[in-house]
Amino acid sequence: MGKKNKKYWIGIDLGGTKLLTALLTRNFKVVSTLKIKVDISKGAKHFLETAEDSIFEVLKESEVSLKEVGGIGIGAPGIIDAKKGTVLYSPNIPFLKDFQLARELKKMTGKPVVLGNDVNVGLYGEHHFGAARGYSDVVGIFLGTGVGGALVLNGKIHEGFMGAAGEVGHMIMEPGGNLCGCGQRGCLESITGRLAIAAEASLLAARQQAKYLYKEVGTEVSKMKSGVLAKAIQSGDKALEKMIRGKAEKLGLAMANLVNVLNPELIVLGGGLVESLGNIILKEAENSMKKFAMPKLAANVKVAAAELGDHAIIKGAARMAFEKFAAGEK
Amino acid sequence: MGKKNKKYWIGIDLGGTKLLTALLTRNFKVVSTLKIKVDISKGAKHFLETAEDSIFEVLKESEVSLKEVGGIGIGAPGIIDAKKGTVLYSPNIPFLKDFQLARELKKMTGKPVVLGNDVNVGLYGEHHFGAARGYSDVVGIFLGTGVGGALVLNGKIHEGFMGAAGEVGHMIMEPGGNLCGCGQRGCLESITGRLAIAAEASLLAARQQAKYLYKEVGTEVSKMKSGVLAKAIQSGDKALEKMIRGKAEKLGLAMANLVNVLNPELIVLGGGLVESLGNIILKEAENSMKKFAMPKLAANVKVAAAELGDHAIIKGAARMAFEKFAAGEK
Repeated sequence: MGKKNKKYWIGIDLGGTKLLTALLTRNFKVVSTLKIKVDISKGAKHFLETAEDSIFEVLKESEVSLKEVGGIGIGAPGIIDAKKGTVLYSPNIPFLKDFQLARELKKMTGKPVVLGNDVNVGLYGEHHFGAARGYSDVVGIFLGTGVGGALVLNGKIHEGFMGAAGEVGHMIMEPGGNLCGCGQRGCLESITGRLAIAAEASLLAARQQAKYLYKEVGTEVSKMKSGVLAKAIQSGDKALEKMIRGKAEKLGLAMANLVNVLNPELIVLGGGLVESLGNIILKEAENSMKKFAMPKLAANVKVAAAELGDHAIIKGAARMAFEKFAAGEK
Repeated sequence: MGKKNKKYWIGIDLGGTKLLTALLTRNFKVVSTLKIKVDISKGAKHFLETAEDSIFEVLKESEVSLKEVGGIGIGAPGIIDAKKGTVLYSPNIPFLKDFQLARELKKMTGKPVVLGNDVNVGLYGEHHFGAARGYSDVVGIFLGTGVGGALVLNGKIHEGFMGAAGEVGHMIMEPGGNLCGCGQRGCLESITGRLAIAAEASLLAARQQAKYLYKEVGTEVSKMKSGVLAKAIQSGDKALEKMIRGKAEKLGLAMANLVNVLNPELIVLGGGLVESLGNIILKEAENSMKKFAMPKLAANVKVAAAELGDHAIIKGAARMAFEKFAAGEK
């Protein structure tokens, strides 16, 4: 069967703790997905076997044979050499160091594999199928445990010299501020990442200034997920809401700096915090951006919530594989 | 005479107070230049006549006829619609509002005219003929009365959605800091622009902590040009040197944020302050950038001084005209 008859693509979202594998049609509809926990302490071989198993699992579930698959796309965290299909360095996954992920997976499956940075791949997904459709200059900021970023410039993902552009989470917004996971102080991530917000929320809980939150999870930072915070605000925790509005304001300042430097047409905000608290964060961040950016530029940039959620990376990855391996089909 | 026989190009650097007009050979050697003051209060017509006169003046001086000129390139301050050859808005030159500069000058000279933002055109010059030759991802920061910036991404000047990308001088580095000319507080320009530095230098002079500077110009901010500051430091004004090192450190923090967002290969620093005080500013800013940027990215970015000085814009403008109007020649 020639490539032109391939009906399916596989998209993989590789995270620090989980692997999300999906089978998509040639129209990028998700046919089936499989999410499994990965124990990264078990090393590269275990991880590759898990990925291989996942691929065969989603195929089996959909009764699709590997022959019908045109290729595999993967979004992985860290600094990626997209041309070589290599993960150069991934802070949270030690074995992904100069790791030829695309080649290894190709060896195991016989399918061509394309690899990209997870945040880039997610914004690529939003650019083709979600909130950024039709926009050629886009800044994407994703607020989760960390704060990731990616850029679409002139209609294409901008990778930078080493493939590491878009690290907006480590722009230093408050010199001498709180310690960030990266070792610096005052990075955007140390202000607006989920952990930073949870830590400040636990302070409010401990002070009895966030009663509903306290009733729900006490002062347990690791339990203060985005959904829990959203529910506490809905239940009336005013101080918590105020704190999060303040975080969004600081996010807006970072957005303003990005607007001045890049003059984008659209800023897409996504990630767990935005999914749960978008009604607060989006408007507050946009107002703050408009206040701090150059007026002419601020007046011409839109702010929108990401639309694809968990499916952004698998869809973007599948589309990348399509772009790379189906090109000769027409 | 066909275009293929054109031997010369004209490059124009249009500033808030002066017009620098140059005739260049097809190899972009500067044959002659003319610098005149422009009184912008006299409006558009006066300005256009001055520009026209300048063009004929440099031709006359070199004994070159207009027929031998292939086209005209201009770098102008403000937000430019490069495709239409229009200045949309220029903060310091009121009549340049939705002003069809390219069309007007073409009407007066009969030559094709291309227009770009002055800082972009200057970095374009450095990219073709100066410090940024051979680099495909470059951030340019120019420290003068204001702080301008421009980006080369994937080998091309990055203009952004409206043609206004690169406003690094208005990244807010110190929320609530000193008032900037743009109306915001704590912009990079309000910290590292020449006026901001001169104001702080005058403070040192007034306190008798910068004796040589005081002896030279008293506490007169408008006289504290870059060259004067450099001379005072050479003469032994230690507190002045320390102050300027502090400014360079803050510049380095802004550079670090740009490195994290754009992952460039090279940062070019230029402008009057760097020309006079480069020996202090470059090293200090680079050290600070390396301290604050993500280590993998910091390790792979170079910092260099601009090489072309006053000739960056005229050379870049002439080259732009060549690129646009000589394309059909080959």
